[in-house]
Amino acid sequence: MKGYITLTDASLRDGNHAVRHQLTIGQIARYAQAADEAGIDIVEVGHGNGLGASSALLGKAASNDAEMLVSVRAKLRRSKLGIHFIPGTGKLSDIEVALEAGVDVFRLASHCTEANITRQFIEYVRHAGKTAYGVLMMSHMADAGEILNQSRLMQSYGAHAIVLMDSAGFSTPDLVKEKVERLIGGLSIPVGYHAHNNLGLAIANSIAAAESGATLLDACVRGIGAGAGNTQLETLVPVLERYGYRTGTDFERIVSLATRTDEVLPICTPHIAIANIITGVFGLFSGFAPHIERLASELKIDSFELCQALAHRKLVAGQEDVIVEEAHRLSAMNA
Amino acid sequence: MKGYITLTDASLRDGNHAVRHQLTIGQIARYAQAADEAGIDIVEVGHGNGLGASSALLGKAASNDAEMLVSVRAKLRRSKLGIHFIPGTGKLSDIEVALEAGVDVFRLASHCTEANITRQFIEYVRHAGKTAYGVLMMSHMADAGEILNQSRLMQSYGAHAIVLMDSAGFSTPDLVKEKVERLIGGLSIPVGYHAHNNLGLAIANSIAAAESGATLLDACVRGIGAGAGNTQLETLVPVLERYGYRTGTDFERIVSLATRTDEVLPICTPHIAIANIITGVFGLFSGFAPHIERLASELKIDSFELCQALAHRKLVAGQEDVIVEEAHRLSAMNA
Repeated sequence: MKGYITLTDASLRDGNHAVRHQLTIGQIARYAQAADEAGIDIVEVGHGNGLGASSALLGKAASNDAEMLVSVRAKLRRSKLGIHFIPGTGKLSDIEVALEAGVDVFRLASHCTEANITRQFIEYVRHAGKTAYGVLMMSHMADAGEILNQSRLMQSYGAHAIVLMDSAGFSTPDLVKEKVERLIGGLSIPVGYHAHNNLGLAIANSIAAAESGATLLDACVRGIGAGAGNTQLETLVPVLERYGYRTGTDFERIVSLATRTDEVLPICTPHIAIANIITGVFGLFSGFAPHIERLASELKIDSFELCQALAHRKLVAGQEDVIVEEAHRLSAMNA
Repeated sequence: MKGYITLTDASLRDGNHAVRHQLTIGQIARYAQAADEAGIDIVEVGHGNGLGASSALLGKAASNDAEMLVSVRAKLRRSKLGIHFIPGTGKLSDIEVALEAGVDVFRLASHCTEANITRQFIEYVRHAGKTAYGVLMMSHMADAGEILNQSRLMQSYGAHAIVLMDSAGFSTPDLVKEKVERLIGGLSIPVGYHAHNNLGLAIANSIAAAESGATLLDACVRGIGAGAGNTQLETLVPVLERYGYRTGTDFERIVSLATRTDEVLPICTPHIAIANIITGVFGLFSGFAPHIERLASELKIDSFELCQALAHRKLVAGQEDVIVEEAHRLSAMNA
């Protein structure tokens, strides 16, 4: 038997991308209760882009952060309550709202080369006596050495763990193994992995992370999430069992959770659309796909060409305005 | 740069499962032409269960074998035309129909421990001067040594290649590696792999097969296929490119094929439903899922329990009647 894998169920946060952040309080509360009863360790909640992200550019959420967090808090008995936070998208006052609502686990995220922006937030959360994870997004855009350096910064700020996000769904198991092994060798805190399924490799990458020493994994019911979606919880759990890992749940309880999900969270499983594969191949943030599709259709430009242009500019999450700019440039070139 | 991977596009055969074998001649002909133009090596066509399978038990197909094969034959310039054949489901006269229609590649399949039933058909196809692959279905139900023995039988009958099918979508990359490496070491003919996506591992298993020496891979556009579907062609090709393999096509041509598919083959990408995961975990044939779902609903029995019972009886493809029998047994026990 191998070790214990702590599961974060991000259905109510990354999964919110799948419905343009329109999860209702009723859906959120009912699913959180079901996840808690199924033995999920951490239930992550909020706008797809995290605390304070509800806006015209990133999408207005159906509910505000405090409402979502308070309603989930009331339903959790065993599971911890988690949030995602990107400095700049969210402010310190958003962290205060989350503390007041009883959040246990704060996942403080930056682009993979900008760990320094998380310092004051990691320190603040630690000072408040809560758990602070450092999260490196778009982790395919830096090599293993740089990822280790950035993770060490977060560790020095007091992070309790480091989570690598493959935000673009670009990675393959060999790349995951290289980075996670480097972190395990160079850090004194646990390591986690958050996969996206753009290349159909979310499960394989999650297992590669575990086999390389990661002890925290993210998943979503039905695989709902930005772009082609996240690691599907219902497949991850039995595959982890096959590989000999323990979790707070088991396959039979996950089958029950999936069955209850039919009633409480009627959201289609994402499929891997060609737009998701293109963003994955070019290493672009999964959340860009709907913007790219819409602009390509409106301006009658080729989405493959637009992705090539965005990849050339090494665009990262938060630069959604540049997609509009590049789309209009391509459209003008065609005119 | 690694070697060349021969791609079989099974969208018009295994993908026929996704629409209960109702692909029309128009859809078949138009998609075959698009696949040919995209540089696919082999286009496989027919009822989901192969030649001669159209029946009340396995599902009546919208078109007969000869119509399907003749219409595709007329569209292929570069691609070879392939069929799937299971002795018992199909008869020698069905092979004759396929020869007359101009089929190039005959994939002669048996349950993984019954290679001997393919002998006369492999010999017949070889005698007719065509390519004969030996196919071992449900390959998770025998260990690597037994798979090698059965493959050697097919090789001794004259098979040009051996294809392992993970018909239940049960396998993980480590299991694939073990079996494919054993075949590569013990056979003198090429080895292929046909994955199903029940555990979200179709791409990872296909890559594991290639990295272990397999040079033939099966895939379907959008991943359409029995159960949770097959390896998705549009993700397989860029991932193979990432790993350094050559194919007859490339990612940009696959993007074009996917775009044309929107018009010619309007079939939804399968998602990994909980029923597919249960059959995958228990190692049951992917094609059983709709039968299990229907019977569970009609007889008000638990599909998880039904799968456990079927797995206990080590049910294999072709034993669809036993599902009905077990379902009624469970229903009677509950009454």
